[in-house]
Amino acid sequence: MKGLQKITLLGQLTTCLLVLSFHAVMAQTPSSYKYKRAEELTMIGKAFANKQFYHRIDTADYPDLPTPVKSLLTHSAGLAIAFKTNSTAIAAKWQTSARKPSANMTAIAFEGLDLYIKKDGKWQFAGVGKPTNDTTEAVVVQHMDSGEKECLLYLPLYDEVTNVSIGIDETGSIVALPDPFKKKIALYGSSIVQGASASRPGLAYPARLSRETGLNFINLGVSGNAKMEKATADMLAMIDADAFVLDCIPNSSPQEIEERTAYLIRTIRAHHPEAPIVMIQTLIREHGYFDQVVGNKTRDQNSMITQQIESLQKEINNLYFIKGDDLLGTDHEGTTDGTHPNDLGFDRMLQVIKPFLTTHLPIAGQIR
Amino acid sequence: MKGLQKITLLGQLTTCLLVLSFHAVMAQTPSSYKYKRAEELTMIGKAFANKQFYHRIDTADYPDLPTPVKSLLTHSAGLAIAFKTNSTAIAAKWQTSARKPSANMTAIAFEGLDLYIKKDGKWQFAGVGKPTNDTTEAVVVQHMDSGEKECLLYLPLYDEVTNVSIGIDETGSIVALPDPFKKKIALYGSSIVQGASASRPGLAYPARLSRETGLNFINLGVSGNAKMEKATADMLAMIDADAFVLDCIPNSSPQEIEERTAYLIRTIRAHHPEAPIVMIQTLIREHGYFDQVVGNKTRDQNSMITQQIESLQKEINNLYFIKGDDLLGTDHEGTTDGTHPNDLGFDRMLQVIKPFLTTHLPIAGQIR
Repeated sequence: MKGLQKITLLGQLTTCLLVLSFHAVMAQTPSSYKYKRAEELTMIGKAFANKQFYHRIDTADYPDLPTPVKSLLTHSAGLAIAFKTNSTAIAAKWQTSARKPSANMTAIAFEGLDLYIKKDGKWQFAGVGKPTNDTTEAVVVQHMDSGEKECLLYLPLYDEVTNVSIGIDETGSIVALPDPFKKKIALYGSSIVQGASASRPGLAYPARLSRETGLNFINLGVSGNAKMEKATADMLAMIDADAFVLDCIPNSSPQEIEERTAYLIRTIRAHHPEAPIVMIQTLIREHGYFDQVVGNKTRDQNSMITQQIESLQKEINNLYFIKGDDLLGTDHEGTTDGTHPNDLGFDRMLQVIKPFLTTHLPIAGQIR
Repeated sequence: MKGLQKITLLGQLTTCLLVLSFHAVMAQTPSSYKYKRAEELTMIGKAFANKQFYHRIDTADYPDLPTPVKSLLTHSAGLAIAFKTNSTAIAAKWQTSARKPSANMTAIAFEGLDLYIKKDGKWQFAGVGKPTNDTTEAVVVQHMDSGEKECLLYLPLYDEVTNVSIGIDETGSIVALPDPFKKKIALYGSSIVQGASASRPGLAYPARLSRETGLNFINLGVSGNAKMEKATADMLAMIDADAFVLDCIPNSSPQEIEERTAYLIRTIRAHHPEAPIVMIQTLIREHGYFDQVVGNKTRDQNSMITQQIESLQKEINNLYFIKGDDLLGTDHEGTTDGTHPNDLGFDRMLQVIKPFLTTHLPIAGQIR
């Protein structure tokens, strides 16, 4: 009899757990949320105020930019929606173009979302929005406590976004959060800056630098097209930035480096007499330890940029240089495909670049 | 006149470079290589010798395995082709199923290839095979010197492969390389063992463990389905392994852990009286710091497996336990989606698991 009572109790408990599970599943239905358009919240990560809410640069303002650069600047790399909410769940609806992920990226990084929430004074990862189609509706995180939470929802790295709405509990509130990052540091570069091959948007290295330093790094990575063209240099110089970090050597041939570096540096300096300018050598492509053509090209690029910067340092003040040799560590496991850092490679890049920017550069003093 | 000579010389040099570039591009055409079928080389990473060359387990031999486990064991996670060649380039043709990458994985990891070459006594990354379709032909690395090279070509983590051929220079030679790894350690677990979300096949953590220790870790990760079923336990116990590492808690409910752990451990021990058995707690799911349901479930799983192992250690010798708390480090950046480690998270897991296996366990002595 006692055994039977136990079984009945167990049965009731099981039913109770099933009901609870059912409610948990119900809570995952995105449409049960109340949505707010991102346009009513704060967009962070922009170089300029512009009319194209989801584009990094309003390229209509810079008609001379090369066509591929214009196209890449419509990708939302480095943009994030900042808001505050007491909701116990956060969902999202977002729309991207018909582009499909390249083989070296996850769909989450390429055309998905990830969310950070401030916890104990630090930004902490809280969930992802997995894209299922060009238009997706997904729960990013749920079952949270109902306290006020400061949130950053990062947008896709390699796609153009046309709409984002953020979903919260029917009874919850959501308001814009002021940009949590200070100053403005323009970070111009290649696919590596744009975010290949971080596994999600918030792990692109400019985003990690912002969260870890509190400084506002602007992602101006243009995959395959960071070639220091005159029109790009002119646009960069227009940014009201406190410092410029240039990681554009991977895409520039030795000849382009020879012909274009001085114009880029001098143009920035002409518009920003004191702003620190930091040039980074290209990282060593990992397949280049075997592919001699790739290895030699990388050496030639780094040799040429060294010559250029050493020469320019004689005339340009506050011009700094980071060597590329150790950017990925020493075990050769830091890339997805030889060229693009994976999250391990980016972590190692940060271990070189972050202390350089925050320690060797008197950044707090020099960046006004 | 001197200026004109310079220009002419520059012109000739440019023409010369263009011709060289053209030849470099030509060398990238995969069809200019001579191909050898993988069946004529060495397949490593198998638990048993079996008739299904590209499957991890010949599931016809284990009819009682759950259907999803059978299906997952057809994926080539952890398998690699070992060969030696003097070719200056390595290409590959391979065929996978119609499956498409999940949102948390790159196509290279899911259905592509990566190559390691022995250099200065260590396995070093050399290149990737990017899938372009269900059948792909691609150059993995080129422009190498013509010395003899020992190679490991890792196969897709999350797809079934039906054919692999390796391409080399028309004049080159290619022969089978004996399995370079010693002993046999069965590593049974979830999607995390199978390789989600490593950015390429060779970065799945069993593969990294093999290269870094020289021991032969067998990838028995079955995504979402490492639930310690009786038939799976019976199959695992049949493996002629020198040690067993069990990372199956992420997929097992507290009830399954309570009901199934003892059978799994006792069955392995019955067939392998002295082989070390190592159980690993589940890593802490990163979104579980906010999602209280997920956080509580992880705590319940780890609490239950702790009880089970502490109890079993009273009767089972050489049974070890690794705690899950610190597996991903402390900055919460080690996953792609909260659940699945990215390459940074895997690197941190290795920093816990590798010294445990090679130092705390007297592995060289105990593994015969």
